[in-house]
Amino acid sequence: MTRLVMKFGGTSMADLERIRRAARIVAAEAAMGKKVAVVVSAMAGKTNELVAWTDGAGAAASGLPMSDDEYDVVVGSGEQVTAGLLAMTLRNMGLNARSWMGWQVPIVTDDAHGKARIEDIPPEKLGAAVDAGEIAVIPGFQGVTRDGKITTLGRGGSDTSAVAVAAALQASRCDIYTDVDGVYTTDPRIEAKARRLEKISYEEMLEMASLGAKVLQTRSVELAMAHKVPVRVLSSFAEPGAADNSGTLVCDEEEIVEKRIVSGVAYSRDEAKVTLLGLPDQTGVPATIFTKLADANVNVDMIVQSQARTADTTNMIFTVGRRDAARAVEIMKANQAEIGFEEVRADEDVAKISVVGVGMRSHAGVAQAMFKALADKGIKIQAISTSEIKISVLIDAAYTELAVRALHAAYGLEQV
Amino acid sequence: MTRLVMKFGGTSMADLERIRRAARIVAAEAAMGKKVAVVVSAMAGKTNELVAWTDGAGAAASGLPMSDDEYDVVVGSGEQVTAGLLAMTLRNMGLNARSWMGWQVPIVTDDAHGKARIEDIPPEKLGAAVDAGEIAVIPGFQGVTRDGKITTLGRGGSDTSAVAVAAALQASRCDIYTDVDGVYTTDPRIEAKARRLEKISYEEMLEMASLGAKVLQTRSVELAMAHKVPVRVLSSFAEPGAADNSGTLVCDEEEIVEKRIVSGVAYSRDEAKVTLLGLPDQTGVPATIFTKLADANVNVDMIVQSQARTADTTNMIFTVGRRDAARAVEIMKANQAEIGFEEVRADEDVAKISVVGVGMRSHAGVAQAMFKALADKGIKIQAISTSEIKISVLIDAAYTELAVRALHAAYGLEQV
Repeated sequence: MTRLVMKFGGTSMADLERIRRAARIVAAEAAMGKKVAVVVSAMAGKTNELVAWTDGAGAAASGLPMSDDEYDVVVGSGEQVTAGLLAMTLRNMGLNARSWMGWQVPIVTDDAHGKARIEDIPPEKLGAAVDAGEIAVIPGFQGVTRDGKITTLGRGGSDTSAVAVAAALQASRCDIYTDVDGVYTTDPRIEAKARRLEKISYEEMLEMASLGAKVLQTRSVELAMAHKVPVRVLSSFAEPGAADNSGTLVCDEEEIVEKRIVSGVAYSRDEAKVTLLGLPDQTGVPATIFTKLADANVNVDMIVQSQARTADTTNMIFTVGRRDAARAVEIMKANQAEIGFEEVRADEDVAKISVVGVGMRSHAGVAQAMFKALADKGIKIQAISTSEIKISVLIDAAYTELAVRALHAAYGLEQV
Repeated sequence: MTRLVMKFGGTSMADLERIRRAARIVAAEAAMGKKVAVVVSAMAGKTNELVAWTDGAGAAASGLPMSDDEYDVVVGSGEQVTAGLLAMTLRNMGLNARSWMGWQVPIVTDDAHGKARIEDIPPEKLGAAVDAGEIAVIPGFQGVTRDGKITTLGRGGSDTSAVAVAAALQASRCDIYTDVDGVYTTDPRIEAKARRLEKISYEEMLEMASLGAKVLQTRSVELAMAHKVPVRVLSSFAEPGAADNSGTLVCDEEEIVEKRIVSGVAYSRDEAKVTLLGLPDQTGVPATIFTKLADANVNVDMIVQSQARTADTTNMIFTVGRRDAARAVEIMKANQAEIGFEEVRADEDVAKISVVGVGMRSHAGVAQAMFKALADKGIKIQAISTSEIKISVLIDAAYTELAVRALHAAYGLEQV
């Protein structure tokens, strides 16, 4: 008996016609004898509408604490609608189906309203229903606290719901149906030669996801890795059983026989560069800077320190998320006396380009190839950061596409 | 300690500005020390949108049974949104408030999905929260079965939810805030001299409601009468505490000191007249006709049998709801041989005009005054039906307004 979890995102639930297509895809799996649970997002755009309403209701009196638990009551309702509609549609196709709200399963979370974490999904009731041949349709994104209050998991949480349900049901796989047909070596809108990957490891997917390839939510990949749930990303726009819709399997590194050194090139324009000029060249100064930023919950990514014109001062460059840029500058200015720099500048006109691949662990020369490929195109590297399986560089945003194409070619990613 | 239940309909919840106005009205009652529970409808138009989606999902394969439990999952979500938004708004005004979903209270219903009846509302938890000063915001219209499935009460069910919560909490009153400022002697759009009634008895309100005065849902009035919950109908568009917004109190007949013979004139254009010509004049024929209709769930209101041109046949007129007219004719035709009539005709161009008043019980001459007033205007009566406290006549629909005005004047209803 094979249990399968299928997840449909907002664009796959956007209207009744798309819900019917999703139902046909679910029916095809059920017809093959799979025991199916389906996790659904709200109709595309719906959650934004609900969030805007809660903003409006909260704006009535600024300064008071947000009503996060009531936010969840409002915003979690979008998935309730699509879950009911998909269950109805499946029934009207003659299948046995029912919806299970977060509180009915239950999908137990902590009480961090608006960004709750799943703590437990008791598999007995749900598993028994699914094994008996009933297709369970579960609203993604929503959960319930131990004392029975509605929670939501934060934006994009439906992927996490799906993987958590798959882990709880010990499903053989979690299929994420979305508006792309898999994970690509890079963004096909930038490089037409980008290829769909047949498989990618959890670690690589995590780096890709956090680097701006928005196919899967980061937390869902972490969860899949922790519980060893194979996750397949595929298109909900192909008809059921279409031969070319095998998608990309996100799985354990060991299941990938032919390892490539570099699997993909990711990019992110969501960065900003902050430059501090004329810093005193003293130990302790960097610690002060990054403590102030951490205290304000500003995450710093890359850091470069360089010699300045005079012998006793240095310059420092660091990067933050674009929406934190103004705040980072403010924090620096507020502490200028203590830190002792001469000038602070922010530059949002930067992009981070990354190459990702588990093969890097055992291969030298990956970084050199990257720097050479960029240098050949005259692209200046402003900062570098690395992990075991990725190398990222900060460049002028104007060169983003050029850099992506150059790196895609440099690592031969266009070849099957 | 006075507990109060307040209910806001769809037009009073239609957008954030109206939700804020409702919140101010609730806040004013709480400021006076009342212990408040609030029942809300979905935003105006929202339920229709959700119902249309379920129609669409169900239409995928006609002929299969409707998924009524999934209908409830989808359609019940509209009230969840407004309950959360109102609770947030109240909090942001500095008040202590939280939403209680139907399954959290719980509002226990039977499992007649789509038209469930409330069976039980355990008052302990909700009552304790309210008494502790927390404003409870409850989505109307929705409930939960004993085994934890979402139900809805049928259209207009939010009034019923409010009265049931008031009964469970033993509230001193249930205030229904709506888009009119009370119950009138007749429709003010037809008769400008219509007066707002200060009080009306449950029985009269029941007759008015079922006769087409759409202020309160019939079931909510029945429930209020059974549990002796005083219900006040008043406008949500007046600012809190406005002197002229005392509304109409629906209460026990005994609490109405000055009884009028006739309290109001109601009308309904939702009727159709079916005429059977050339029926055999035999006992048993009417029984056959009305058994066939009852078997098909067609409710018959008025019945008139009259002599036909020939000595051994009669004609019969009966009225049904307009949407049942075509089906009634079909049923008659299908049984023409057995019943033995010569011809069947349906006429939707009719209206039912009614005068209602508990004073009729002890006063003769009410019917004569009605017939005379209509005759004076040349309005022909096609059928009559009566109860202890109302007289209804069927007339040509073209005369509706004229008849309403004539009767309003005949009973002196314009006088305070």
